[in-house]
Amino acid sequence: MVTQRREADAVEVLSGVYEGKTTGAPLAMVIYNEDQRSKNYDDLKDLFRPGHGDFTFYKKYGLRDHRGGGRQSGRETACRVAAGAVARAILGRLGVRIVAHAIEIAGIQAKRCEYDVIENNPVRCADPDVAPLMEEAILNARAMKDSVGGIIQLEIYGLPPGLGDPVFGKLDARLCSAIMTIGAIKGVEVGDGFAITKLSGSKANDGMDTAGFTSNHHGGILGGISSGAPVIMRLAVKPTASIASTQHTVTVTGEPCEVEVRGRHDPCIVVRAVPVVENMAAFVLLNAFEMQARLNPAWATEYYPLAE
Amino acid sequence: MVTQRREADAVEVLSGVYEGKTTGAPLAMVIYNEDQRSKNYDDLKDLFRPGHGDFTFYKKYGLRDHRGGGRQSGRETACRVAAGAVARAILGRLGVRIVAHAIEIAGIQAKRCEYDVIENNPVRCADPDVAPLMEEAILNARAMKDSVGGIIQLEIYGLPPGLGDPVFGKLDARLCSAIMTIGAIKGVEVGDGFAITKLSGSKANDGMDTAGFTSNHHGGILGGISSGAPVIMRLAVKPTASIASTQHTVTVTGEPCEVEVRGRHDPCIVVRAVPVVENMAAFVLLNAFEMQARLNPAWATEYYPLAE
Amino acid sequence: MVTQRREADAVEVLSGVYEGKTTGAPLAMVIYNEDQRSKNYDDLKDLFRPGHGDFTFYKKYGLRDHRGGGRQSGRETACRVAAGAVARAILGRLGVRIVAHAIEIAGIQAKRCEYDVIENNPVRCADPDVAPLMEEAILNARAMKDSVGGIIQLEIYGLPPGLGDPVFGKLDARLCSAIMTIGAIKGVEVGDGFAITKLSGSKANDGMDTAGFTSNHHGGILGGISSGAPVIMRLAVKPTASIASTQHTVTVTGEPCEVEVRGRHDPCIVVRAVPVVENMAAFVLLNAFEMQARLNPAWATEYYPLAE
Amino acid sequence: MVTQRREADAVEVLSGVYEGKTTGAPLAMVIYNEDQRSKNYDDLKDLFRPGHGDFTFYKKYGLRDHRGGGRQSGRETACRVAAGAVARAILGRLGVRIVAHAIEIAGIQAKRCEYDVIENNPVRCADPDVAPLMEEAILNARAMKDSVGGIIQLEIYGLPPGLGDPVFGKLDARLCSAIMTIGAIKGVEVGDGFAITKLSGSKANDGMDTAGFTSNHHGGILGGISSGAPVIMRLAVKPTASIASTQHTVTVTGEPCEVEVRGRHDPCIVVRAVPVVENMAAFVLLNAFEMQARLNPAWATEYYPLAE
Repeated sequence: MVTQRREADAVEVLSGVYEGKTTGAPLAMVIYNEDQRSKNYDDLKDLFRPGHGDFTFYKKYGLRDHRGGGRQSGRETACRVAAGAVARAILGRLGVRIVAHAIEIAGIQAKRCEYDVIENNPVRCADPDVAPLMEEAILNARAMKDSVGGIIQLEIYGLPPGLGDPVFGKLDARLCSAIMTIGAIKGVEVGDGFAITKLSGSKANDGMDTAGFTSNHHGGILGGISSGAPVIMRLAVKPTASIASTQHTVTVTGEPCEVEVRGRHDPCIVVRAVPVVENMAAFVLLNAFEMQARLNPAWATEYYPLAE
Repeated sequence: MVTQRREADAVEVLSGVYEGKTTGAPLAMVIYNEDQRSKNYDDLKDLFRPGHGDFTFYKKYGLRDHRGGGRQSGRETACRVAAGAVARAILGRLGVRIVAHAIEIAGIQAKRCEYDVIENNPVRCADPDVAPLMEEAILNARAMKDSVGGIIQLEIYGLPPGLGDPVFGKLDARLCSAIMTIGAIKGVEVGDGFAITKLSGSKANDGMDTAGFTSNHHGGILGGISSGAPVIMRLAVKPTASIASTQHTVTVTGEPCEVEVRGRHDPCIVVRAVPVVENMAAFVLLNAFEMQARLNPAWATEYYPLAE
Repeated sequence: MVTQRREADAVEVLSGVYEGKTTGAPLAMVIYNEDQRSKNYDDLKDLFRPGHGDFTFYKKYGLRDHRGGGRQSGRETACRVAAGAVARAILGRLGVRIVAHAIEIAGIQAKRCEYDVIENNPVRCADPDVAPLMEEAILNARAMKDSVGGIIQLEIYGLPPGLGDPVFGKLDARLCSAIMTIGAIKGVEVGDGFAITKLSGSKANDGMDTAGFTSNHHGGILGGISSGAPVIMRLAVKPTASIASTQHTVTVTGEPCEVEVRGRHDPCIVVRAVPVVENMAAFVLLNAFEMQARLNPAWATEYYPLAE
Repeated sequence: MVTQRREADAVEVLSGVYEGKTTGAPLAMVIYNEDQRSKNYDDLKDLFRPGHGDFTFYKKYGLRDHRGGGRQSGRETACRVAAGAVARAILGRLGVRIVAHAIEIAGIQAKRCEYDVIENNPVRCADPDVAPLMEEAILNARAMKDSVGGIIQLEIYGLPPGLGDPVFGKLDARLCSAIMTIGAIKGVEVGDGFAITKLSGSKANDGMDTAGFTSNHHGGILGGISSGAPVIMRLAVKPTASIASTQHTVTVTGEPCEVEVRGRHDPCIVVRAVPVVENMAAFVLLNAFEMQARLNPAWATEYYPLAE
């Protein structure tokens, strides 16, 4: 098992739905934490966990709420998924397909891409041969009281051209920002990303013919606006900071000490981040559709016919 | 010469300053384009330049303004630099130093970092041995009617801990978003970035002792909040899309054709993007100082004593 | 009894407080409706209540949620009061006193102002002689299956000069907007308000001497910015729309019909609106303090010393 | 002549238009002040003008820019009218008609309403008999080195039902806020306004029959949402603060003194405020159309068919 958590995550809808339909009122939902064990955190009360936001939150707010479950916790992403489900339902009706999957964990890279297997293996990898190796690497990390990182690829199909805005509202900037707000993500690239820096312009430019783009180095976004080609992004996920092996740190009062972080922390965040990435993309895209639909009603008639 | 442009870029201040001081009124500035040669663009009137936002803007707005100088042009970043100068002046008084430099161009990597040489060579590289090689690669690219890309490193020193907000307002997300709004940037990473995905948690975590962090894999931001360690980011810049060699494209009506983009386009955007990156970071940081100062007045007393 | 409602209005704090202090996390509160009797509304399922938002909501959303308790209901103001309590606590520490009271109900005008009696009579009037007459008028209205309106005066003491912003952020505009969002309010005036239109400038202008303003026709706001004089506003509250006498209306399908609105509707909204008005003012003022404190740190040192 | 100003007010379009059409880029316009005579203001350099924002601006910003033409000046409303022209052009295509006129100046009330005469008399009054009396009152005020105020009525025809949002986005709150940002306005009322407070609910409620509302006490907005009936508002405009007669005031250092404000100040702001009121309403309405069109596409098909 790559996760030890047990959370029912029942969503209670507080407002905005009547007889199975949204009413136009805000859709408010609450998910109560059920499997919270604050006492697990008592040992951590007076020290800072390495690689964790403990220290920075303390410096920011000048106080300490050492219990788990706060806004530093990955638990907050449950809300993103709950709300994202609504955005994804609307995007699905428009023919937009958003899929993310692990393409590398602990240095092990996927070679193939079979979308059907992603949700059928515990590491959310599209390569059925490599997935068991990734799972093994994660279990080994836990056995070693350690953790591993990896890379997620996000792919978006079915987007029309025209989403995103010039200058400060570029679609790639919005997607990157939204995704970087997910904990543990340390890098984002679009299309060829860092690899494009080694190409010459004549190789990097994507030509066009009557059928559209003849290649997709640009990753579906040009000048900050969707081109109609698939949006392809990759995201770097750091290894889980909370590990059970002994680490050097300091107490709240600055005394050196050692810490072993116990609890039910997943040794690889990649697996859990995959659906969060998809949902953050969904928010950005639905918002971009809404903005573009008002900017250009002729475009809306063609690409966003929600009135019917 | 790595650039052929001649632009005085005189800034006219329309409002907000009286007798050498800001008044509290909005600081409005205008920079008129002087070296604009719209006729250079006449050949491009009816076709889409590969790698350029031409096509996506056309699809977005349903019309075509083929002349240079619009919001697709790198010219718009002049405004960012003009306004950023104000933000940087304030940050400078706080002891914050923001420096960006080219660490790779056309695959040629800097090996050393001497900050003093950055503004003394035409490629804004901190390695005086490698800078001439980078310059040569750029000039060769122009001779070949081609272009090259590269990587910029952004370094921010003197930041206090506590900047940035949890969940959707993370400092890394804000910096990445601001920087991704600069044209031609296709990737962003913080701290070890994509390389951290290959480390185990026990290696990736930065320990602490009484003097602070004992390493900086995290790149100065933890849990979305500045840690007090230097902020280190790297940015992937694609090769200039506008090149003079022959490329395949289509006309506005979809007919296949060929294009050679003439004009005074720089064959490497890295060089010009360096100051823009610094200024975009300055906006984000000054804004973060302002937000944090109100959130926590005790913090402001220590780190943002602007009242004096 | 001028109200027949029974609502415990217990506030459940979901986040943002730890050991009796705010943590910097959002302060989320929920108030569940307990005394909701949706069946009371069954008779109204297919028709529009005169003077009510029924018709406009239906036209806006294209659907009907005829039950009470939605965003058309005065119930939503309970949230404003719960959140406003926090704003008022902070403002109170700054020496700001916000008080509203009924100065007219059913045409009966208060002649005196004794602040101590406001919360000691059921109509929240500062004139102990007139309050019983107002109460009688309200009870008579209910007996007649009718309702009455009135005027609330809002007074704010202890504000420093400098709150509010020029052009689109004027303090009077912000206060009026916030207060007009309360249901049933149909007019707002500041200082002498409509009466000042009959004065000449030489009479309307407030002179100054060494002790400050020698009069307060302006009502504490000049050029959209607080002057340090008390802010005085008056608000017109229409009679309750939901009355038990027979009225002419139409059904959802446009057929003429008659309606008698039963339920526990208060025959005078003035009484209930008084605390909501105070709280809406508190939000605007606290926000204005925050904005001004960052704009002018020297001002903050003098007027907003929250760091201590 | 009720005004002595001579301002060409030529608008220079900086961006956003190409070949007579908007391009989707921001529409930036600049109006340079031509008839600015800063030396007129030299006498006022060190004192506060009664009834003016001088004092509050000084307290807010801690500095003094005593010259005319700043953000305290009515000159800033020229920008509102320039930009509003665009909003009004779009609203006009939708059949929305916005008209404001002086219904009272110096206590003299209009008795009739003939829309055609409004722009044909210098006081913008719809009653051709009363307009000359109002003009005379204004000229008398100037002769007396004094000023007068008045009341403007704003009427909006052709609005569909459904504009505005519940709770904090009510259409009446938005209109009042926008209009209160115009200098010198001290009160706003909707429909019957303050007069409705004296009616009983059975009189104040507007009944409905198959043809719609049988009266319009509510002034076109119910529950914060447009009802389809004409929107009717009245606005209190105070007498011009800048008058040439002697007034008591203090200097910047707090010394008592006297002041006579010279310059070309209009003795009645009502006349100049009329078009500004219309334009501020236009911004709010166009914005409300845009929001509602996305909220409810079926509504947009019926009421906001701009795609054609």
